[in-house]
Amino acid sequence: MRYSLLAGGKRVRPMLCIAACELVGGDPLTAMPAACAVEMIHTMSLMHDDLPCMDNDDFRRGKPTNHIVYGEDVAVLAGDALLSFSFEHIATATEGVSSDRILRAIGELAKCIGSEGLVAGQVVDICSEGADVGLDHLEFIHLHKTAALLEGSVVLGAIMGGGSDEEIEKLRKFARSIGLLFQVVDDILDVTKSSEELGKTAGKDLVADKTTYPKLLGIEKSREFAEKLNKEAQEQLLEFDQLKAAPLIALANYIAYREN
Amino acid sequence: MRYSLLAGGKRVRPMLCIAACELVGGDPLTAMPAACAVEMIHTMSLMHDDLPCMDNDDFRRGKPTNHIVYGEDVAVLAGDALLSFSFEHIATATEGVSSDRILRAIGELAKCIGSEGLVAGQVVDICSEGADVGLDHLEFIHLHKTAALLEGSVVLGAIMGGGSDEEIEKLRKFARSIGLLFQVVDDILDVTKSSEELGKTAGKDLVADKTTYPKLLGIEKSREFAEKLNKEAQEQLLEFDQLKAAPLIALANYIAYREN
Repeated sequence: MRYSLLAGGKRVRPMLCIAACELVGGDPLTAMPAACAVEMIHTMSLMHDDLPCMDNDDFRRGKPTNHIVYGEDVAVLAGDALLSFSFEHIATATEGVSSDRILRAIGELAKCIGSEGLVAGQVVDICSEGADVGLDHLEFIHLHKTAALLEGSVVLGAIMGGGSDEEIEKLRKFARSIGLLFQVVDDILDVTKSSEELGKTAGKDLVADKTTYPKLLGIEKSREFAEKLNKEAQEQLLEFDQLKAAPLIALANYIAYREN
Repeated sequence: MRYSLLAGGKRVRPMLCIAACELVGGDPLTAMPAACAVEMIHTMSLMHDDLPCMDNDDFRRGKPTNHIVYGEDVAVLAGDALLSFSFEHIATATEGVSSDRILRAIGELAKCIGSEGLVAGQVVDICSEGADVGLDHLEFIHLHKTAALLEGSVVLGAIMGGGSDEEIEKLRKFARSIGLLFQVVDDILDVTKSSEELGKTAGKDLVADKTTYPKLLGIEKSREFAEKLNKEAQEQLLEFDQLKAAPLIALANYIAYREN
């Protein structure tokens, strides 16, 4: 559990969670357990996705994947334990938030993981390898596989921070846009950068014959689409205090212009 | 998810959950989402334990295991989705219970799954195959692999039913005893019944050279130990209303004297 959780990574989801909490006027400490929880979920999803029976990846965040080091059995179980611990941590370590709100956050987190979230995206993705897939289908995959947990991250932060339903909805839309943005950029990086630059195996999508934005739109149109998504995301933040929105704007730009 | 969850099974954990709720004077409906949740956890733990990288079992509850029907990738993911849905279901479907209590139940459930519960038991079990293991070590495995979720089941039922801390502690001890009881009986059945009678592969422990109670104590002493655990379990129920305790007493006897 520690090996994969502490292997580095960009920590985009915890940052989103804490930034959303502060945006709605909350104390960032109230969102800290939720921020850790979303990173645990992200990590466990990578551990399971990397398994030989799924993406069969032996290199992640610049290090051998969990099952390479500890074996497949332990990698499955450590992922399960991280998944349950994420809920335990929110339920027992969150301070200064009403039980009603913590419970709502737990429901939101759970929903973004399972058959309406991450898992839905991964299953459809697996079933689509080698298939002739259109843009709508690709968007379904990314909205679930990638955007769902980013959405969960900002929603949990906003819930812990005491955000209104209206604020939470705006942040939901923001997260869905940057979720797609994140994946479009990932697809572009996969075909334009080396394994060394990425810290993970490059060109995997081509090898697996996966449908990607560059494959459907070409690199240039994919870059334009990324710009459009970044703009749409930032429009959701216009009615918030711009000083407090600055970290989320910076994160959107970081996702849009990241190099690995 | 449906295939494995609805494949049958004894439903011992949901029954324990609802019986504990009623024992402390609660409305059984308040414990229904928790009862479903503990069965989901039990099912997902079986799905992952049955994987080729773990116990490699292709027959469970009289049917082909999940990965045989849907593939290993889907079996891993369906287990993950059941795990997260169990928390979602408790958080969103429980009615007539304070958020404080629901949150406490979620913390208890999470703890009995992860690195201090089911997963701890499974990891130590996997690492012990073929090793020379003593009674204490065997008890650690079963207290985590089997008793933890039975304990979680009664504790969740008692929390939802409004039980006092003292009542919850008695039910904890009851569950730990029947957890060991359950495993002692399982070990005995594995070497005394056929695959057909069990609805799962018999004699697996001998083939895998696993340490079991019959192996350490012999069949007769194992049966005596089972009797002792059943007696200890039922002693925890003496101070409760005996009419309301009847279902738990019956469940303990069912576990002690079951044939599959």
